[in-house]
Amino acid sequence: MINIAVAQSGGPTCAINASLVGVFKESLKVSTIDAIFGSVNGIEGIIENHLVDLKSMILTNNDMELLKQTPSTVLGSCRYKLPDWHDDEEVYKKITETLKQRNIGAFLYIGGNDSMDTVNKLSEYFAEKAVDIKVIGIPKTIDNDLCITDHTPGFGSAAKYVATTMHEITRDSIVYSIPSVTIVEIMGRHAGWLTASSAVLHAMGETAPHLVYVPEVKFSLDSFLADVRQEMSKHKAVIVAVSEGIEVPEGVQSGVVDNFGHKYLSGIGKYLEDVVRSEIGCKVRSIELNVMQRCSSHLGSKTDIDEAEAIGAAGVRCALEGETGKVMVFRRIEDIPYTAVIETADAKDIANNEKFLPKKYINSAGNNIRDFALKYFLPLIQGDLNLITENGIPKHFAIHESVLK
Amino acid sequence: MINIAVAQSGGPTCAINASLVGVFKESLKVSTIDAIFGSVNGIEGIIENHLVDLKSMILTNNDMELLKQTPSTVLGSCRYKLPDWHDDEEVYKKITETLKQRNIGAFLYIGGNDSMDTVNKLSEYFAEKAVDIKVIGIPKTIDNDLCITDHTPGFGSAAKYVATTMHEITRDSIVYSIPSVTIVEIMGRHAGWLTASSAVLHAMGETAPHLVYVPEVKFSLDSFLADVRQEMSKHKAVIVAVSEGIEVPEGVQSGVVDNFGHKYLSGIGKYLEDVVRSEIGCKVRSIELNVMQRCSSHLGSKTDIDEAEAIGAAGVRCALEGETGKVMVFRRIEDIPYTAVIETADAKDIANNEKFLPKKYINSAGNNIRDFALKYFLPLIQGDLNLITENGIPKHFAIHESVLK
Repeated sequence: MINIAVAQSGGPTCAINASLVGVFKESLKVSTIDAIFGSVNGIEGIIENHLVDLKSMILTNNDMELLKQTPSTVLGSCRYKLPDWHDDEEVYKKITETLKQRNIGAFLYIGGNDSMDTVNKLSEYFAEKAVDIKVIGIPKTIDNDLCITDHTPGFGSAAKYVATTMHEITRDSIVYSIPSVTIVEIMGRHAGWLTASSAVLHAMGETAPHLVYVPEVKFSLDSFLADVRQEMSKHKAVIVAVSEGIEVPEGVQSGVVDNFGHKYLSGIGKYLEDVVRSEIGCKVRSIELNVMQRCSSHLGSKTDIDEAEAIGAAGVRCALEGETGKVMVFRRIEDIPYTAVIETADAKDIANNEKFLPKKYINSAGNNIRDFALKYFLPLIQGDLNLITENGIPKHFAIHESVLK
Repeated sequence: MINIAVAQSGGPTCAINASLVGVFKESLKVSTIDAIFGSVNGIEGIIENHLVDLKSMILTNNDMELLKQTPSTVLGSCRYKLPDWHDDEEVYKKITETLKQRNIGAFLYIGGNDSMDTVNKLSEYFAEKAVDIKVIGIPKTIDNDLCITDHTPGFGSAAKYVATTMHEITRDSIVYSIPSVTIVEIMGRHAGWLTASSAVLHAMGETAPHLVYVPEVKFSLDSFLADVRQEMSKHKAVIVAVSEGIEVPEGVQSGVVDNFGHKYLSGIGKYLEDVVRSEIGCKVRSIELNVMQRCSSHLGSKTDIDEAEAIGAAGVRCALEGETGKVMVFRRIEDIPYTAVIETADAKDIANNEKFLPKKYINSAGNNIRDFALKYFLPLIQGDLNLITENGIPKHFAIHESVLK
């Protein structure tokens, strides 16, 4: 008998808890697995020996269904970067101590790029020290910027939110008789996947978004203004999708840096709003989709949530088969009908790499997404969740804040 | 045989098109009504004789269902203020000319406070000039600040959006191990109805929102900081709901003024974020719910949309009964089970008045909503729409932009 541990890390998405359910349910099925521990606040919980017994918290199928429609990370999160163990072994020793003390044979880490770095470092350390604990990564990120995998859990729901909301903003923007520009700022530090997903509206016969700016294309303020002027000659209400990560003049970004050296970006939409107001002088508004694009589980994509659960379950099976240092990935077989299979990749090939929007998805002017690219996005946003509601709004599953501390 | 005209005005909501469907469907049933004209961009379309034949555009029951799940105003909108006819009769003559030329016997105006001012002025002018055209107002506004009526169509859907999104933001905010403050800015110039609706979460057992600031209570920065510090001693992640309309020091509000003398407000959340950062120094984020709170029809309240349709239909019957200068209103009979009836009020009693959140709904500290007040909000957010989707996102009904010009 072994126990297993699972943790969640990085920025929230709508699918991280579904992957937790996948890990939990699959573990329940395996007779050789005894306790299922949840680590509070990602790897920090392992370091500090702050684990909770998930079987005593997730009691019913209804709990699991609620968890699948609950955004964010029910076990808390962290942005902790493991040092190189050659430089600082102390934290590795603490992790090993916790895992051994709890008789944990496999550790499943649900997270983004940075968490896959942890999976890689930890599995290498265990191999070096001949510690028989499997470490498997379950990907998640709304940014969809992980290598090798066709897409990441969490992206489909975020893309569905972005497309649905852009559609509604388009209706909202078109009502007045005077010309206007609406700038919608979408998350994505270096990769334009989520911003590009707004172009799904073109498949609905919408001309909006009329302009789409992604970080993969060098941004020019002059070209931007020329683009906006041209679209204004064709449409009364011009809708612009812009990634938070496009390069704009110094001083616009707030410049606060997190533990991984990532800048917290904000205000690009507001900046462009000011530019349009002063240079063109028309009615202009900027809208930041903010955290809603990563936590609006009421708009979760069924495809995404089902896949997130399946990839969590696959992670458990992978660990039981003796694999370690692996990340579970999707390989797409077909767009229509959409078919994908779950495989494994080496964590070292995924950690600290980024996957960008293919150049061929972007039009030659660098200001919109080509129609043929929509076949990539469309399957991922299909299907709605059958939400459990209370008082007219979707219910969530939550662990009391005193437990999470 | 008479024709009728309908127009939509003011800021978008999720329910304005449902009221249009109500007017349209009811008119189809009446054998003495011939054409149903839609005025493009509110009263401006009547002034400029820019009307469309709705029967040639809304062709099927499916079109009507789509229209009911389409946010904003399908016929465009305006923010046009009618002058006093004693000062300037010119525009009244143009309106009369259009309506007479099109043989229009009744004009239904779906809008907010300002549109009810138009209903009042126009009906008084027609009475003075013995013009037999009935003018009836159908209320709408997410602000819920119209007098006499228990609530306004559009408010319930906006409240459902605010409550659902606050719930999700709460999950998103609670994940990190460090203390944090999240400030959510909600629409409402002078009335705190929509901001107060975030307190619906308390009925779900949530402690969030921990603080709720509405324009009905004089805002003090010192009290705000003391409140935040106190909540931080109890909760790791403090969630604050704040109305855009609270009074803050000069210079924070952008100060652009529209035709009705309303200031365009923005940035109060950002301002308070900066205050918390500099005075308390913790992790802090502000989120503006922006236009999404008025156009997220994918989260429409079935109660709201059904009522919006019903009150539109009732407006037609009211005009046919010979009434004019009236606004259709709701009178609530019971909270549980929720029952309301549709009545009429004089437009002059509604126009240019505002209805504020009752003082008794606000706690004695002036920083939250009392639990007993939730019985007002809860019935209005019940029920979900059975959405028609395409490509994984809700479909809309739209009139081609070339028709709207």
